[in-house]
Amino acid sequence: MTDTTSAAIVVEDATEEAVLAVAAASEAWARTSAAERARVIHVIADALDAAADDLIAIAEEESRLPQPRLTGELKRTTFQLRLFADVAQEGAYLDARIDRPAADWPMGAPRPDLRRMLVPIGPVLVFSASNFPFAFSVAGGDTAAALAAGNAVLVKAHSGHPRLSDATAAEIAAAVRAAGGPADLLRVIHGTDNGVAALRHPAIKAASFTGSIPGGRALFDIANGRTEPIPFYGELGSVNPAFVAPSASRRRAAEIAEGYLASLTGSQGQLCTKPGVLFVPEGSPILDELSAKPVPGPAPMLNERIQAGFVDALQALRAHKGVDVLRDSEWSLADPPEITLLCTTIDEVLAAPDALITEVFGPAGLVVTYTDAASLPGVARALNGQLTATIVADDGAEDDVDVARRLVPILTEKAGRLLWNQWPTGVSVTYAQQHGGPYPATTSPGTTAVGTASITRFVRPVAYQNFPDALLPDPLRDANPLGVPQRIDG
Amino acid sequence: MTDTTSAAIVVEDATEEAVLAVAAASEAWARTSAAERARVIHVIADALDAAADDLIAIAEEESRLPQPRLTGELKRTTFQLRLFADVAQEGAYLDARIDRPAADWPMGAPRPDLRRMLVPIGPVLVFSASNFPFAFSVAGGDTAAALAAGNAVLVKAHSGHPRLSDATAAEIAAAVRAAGGPADLLRVIHGTDNGVAALRHPAIKAASFTGSIPGGRALFDIANGRTEPIPFYGELGSVNPAFVAPSASRRRAAEIAEGYLASLTGSQGQLCTKPGVLFVPEGSPILDELSAKPVPGPAPMLNERIQAGFVDALQALRAHKGVDVLRDSEWSLADPPEITLLCTTIDEVLAAPDALITEVFGPAGLVVTYTDAASLPGVARALNGQLTATIVADDGAEDDVDVARRLVPILTEKAGRLLWNQWPTGVSVTYAQQHGGPYPATTSPGTTAVGTASITRFVRPVAYQNFPDALLPDPLRDANPLGVPQRIDG
Repeated sequence: MTDTTSAAIVVEDATEEAVLAVAAASEAWARTSAAERARVIHVIADALDAAADDLIAIAEEESRLPQPRLTGELKRTTFQLRLFADVAQEGAYLDARIDRPAADWPMGAPRPDLRRMLVPIGPVLVFSASNFPFAFSVAGGDTAAALAAGNAVLVKAHSGHPRLSDATAAEIAAAVRAAGGPADLLRVIHGTDNGVAALRHPAIKAASFTGSIPGGRALFDIANGRTEPIPFYGELGSVNPAFVAPSASRRRAAEIAEGYLASLTGSQGQLCTKPGVLFVPEGSPILDELSAKPVPGPAPMLNERIQAGFVDALQALRAHKGVDVLRDSEWSLADPPEITLLCTTIDEVLAAPDALITEVFGPAGLVVTYTDAASLPGVARALNGQLTATIVADDGAEDDVDVARRLVPILTEKAGRLLWNQWPTGVSVTYAQQHGGPYPATTSPGTTAVGTASITRFVRPVAYQNFPDALLPDPLRDANPLGVPQRIDG
Repeated sequence: MTDTTSAAIVVEDATEEAVLAVAAASEAWARTSAAERARVIHVIADALDAAADDLIAIAEEESRLPQPRLTGELKRTTFQLRLFADVAQEGAYLDARIDRPAADWPMGAPRPDLRRMLVPIGPVLVFSASNFPFAFSVAGGDTAAALAAGNAVLVKAHSGHPRLSDATAAEIAAAVRAAGGPADLLRVIHGTDNGVAALRHPAIKAASFTGSIPGGRALFDIANGRTEPIPFYGELGSVNPAFVAPSASRRRAAEIAEGYLASLTGSQGQLCTKPGVLFVPEGSPILDELSAKPVPGPAPMLNERIQAGFVDALQALRAHKGVDVLRDSEWSLADPPEITLLCTTIDEVLAAPDALITEVFGPAGLVVTYTDAASLPGVARALNGQLTATIVADDGAEDDVDVARRLVPILTEKAGRLLWNQWPTGVSVTYAQQHGGPYPATTSPGTTAVGTASITRFVRPVAYQNFPDALLPDPLRDANPLGVPQRIDG
């Protein structure tokens, strides 16, 4: 492991060495069978579970996140590694297609023997996130997806948890060695400059990022400005609006306020799916509930830079014309901060949507009141791209369902995940999960950063025409020795 | 229809009007059922077939391509429209996934009800190509894929066939009107400036392009430089190397030379999959065959600009150190040109790969001789991204299979389609086709521009969490009223 202090300054040679080592490992890994890859990834997951106490202790120190949250996050992380390994081994993600020769193909010319599948894209560079030191970091979702798809990984560690990053990488390296996988299957580098140098390196074939809009956009621009541009999967920013319909607002005010506050304050509001804006009817009893319900006391934020950013963004929003304070305390801008709720009206939002519907990363939310639910579709149309959008409504109430029927098609254009009477935080790792939406939620709206579909970010299709069976990859052979799903003749 | 002459100069207002009209049509089309969309697309295909005589006459005049080629191309184009419509209606491309709630999900938290599918991405801008006035133009593959996926289309017509573009669009508009589809489902604009203005318009959500590396890269940069970047699917340039193994070269010299010359000279070499470079053993009888076989006589190229580009590129290659002429005639640089074959050695190529392995769009090829097949993997590693790579070898000859075994993994990294004893031109439209490879073959290596998988370029995923059945899109409902494939619980 390198000394992270000096590494953060100038180690271009070490970065070059790390990129080339990962590139060599990626070639070997791509040629390893899916079953063998799954076996190695399981060994990695087991090793991280076995090292939980040590890793969580470092994570607590570096991230200031509480131990139970970190314990759950590591469990999610190792589950994710195993799930992705198993899904990759099952092979449906390969999208194996076999077209047999057809003399009478109606295109007008005979159809040749064509067989197509997804192959590993090559070495992947992962920029890890501040707010999930396990699940979106060295051994996190992007790494799990890239490894499962058959690529080696270079991780640019987040400056918020450098020691944890190195310790996680060391556990992975030992596990890979013990399992007989390729050396340098995963390497870690430190420092922004080294991350940029790696992103520019021709051997890197894809990159992923979770973080702020300015940082992510700068890296996206670098990835696309390369001589050979590469796919850049950036998850940048999202406000995650929630719309409470009139009937639900009257009938379930206490429950809605409680659910909203829990989602808003979880992990001190430092979640990409935090529901930052809540639309409620004017005069709704939810407003009183939001002011009165108990909330968690002050708690530290991830680091000083994030806290300073939170205070700046919150102050700017508080100072905006038409924005009032619904709930705060002497602690709201202190260190550590407590929750702040601001409020405004839908007319103010429609007059300045970009200024008011803006992400404040931390424990703060904006409550927007409306007098007529007919104005909600207009405000939904004014939204930028979002990770999530939430509708809180009563299925049995005709007026609520009417509101939903008008909102759903618009929100489908704006967000990657729509929720009904649930809150967007606590993103489940599943087969049907979608974590990604139109820009700036993601730079690549056709993809997801969570769930098994995220594996397909790190592959590319290759077709083999008229190939002898013995030279085809196993998933495309007639005998289908791996038993993967094959789509034959469409 | 606008006057294309004046339209090419300044019609920003008309472009804005066209974008907004297409955007309105796209919303209506996205909410139309897949069955209804398929019905309208079939009506479009039938209308184009019915107008074949008129359209082909205009195409002959504008593109200088021969009538039989254009007849085949239009047949391919209407087949493609119908195939994509039917595949979209079948619904497997939606990748519908349903995760039912699970209390004991091993992640550590209960799994919610999550349902995910692909939805239309929104209005698509298609930059059409010079060399396929039907199949990669107004009613071509990109349009077929975008329409089938549920998006309206704005086509930036190619300057090489403006009247055909307008005539095709007029047929489509009449067919859509007759079928009761949304007005402005497809519109055509003319002129580079208007194309760029449309690409910058916030209502456009994806773009596709087929053409040169400089032109495509400039548009790619614009698409990525937008405030909201959008997916840009550019197919730019490819040399399509072909490798002849030693045994095949000895045993099948005449057949190989004949196949290569036919593929090289088809459509006057103006095909993106033209096999521009052929590797053969030094002293192979193929060399004599290539010099002696009859080839088509001089034939006009698509237009003067393309011919000038061909002459420039060919002269530069001829002038390069170590490049000799294997076959030419007094016509090779004349108007219209005849075939030119240049030759060089693998050592020269390894010394200057970028200069020698370069696309010359037109009837010319470079034959590269090697003395030892062991040098082929090295030259394969030096390749840029390619649409195709071809291996000509004898399955039964051990030395040929050895060569192939070493080449296939490298070529898999470099190209989107690998061929065995067939030639890369004549790209079949099928389920397993792959037309796209690493840059500069394509700007988006994870996608294809030909075949039914091209539909998924124009969609994005959306998940619905905990939604009432009545508010879900049909493909995600429990009753599955459309009968689309659903992947339940993974």
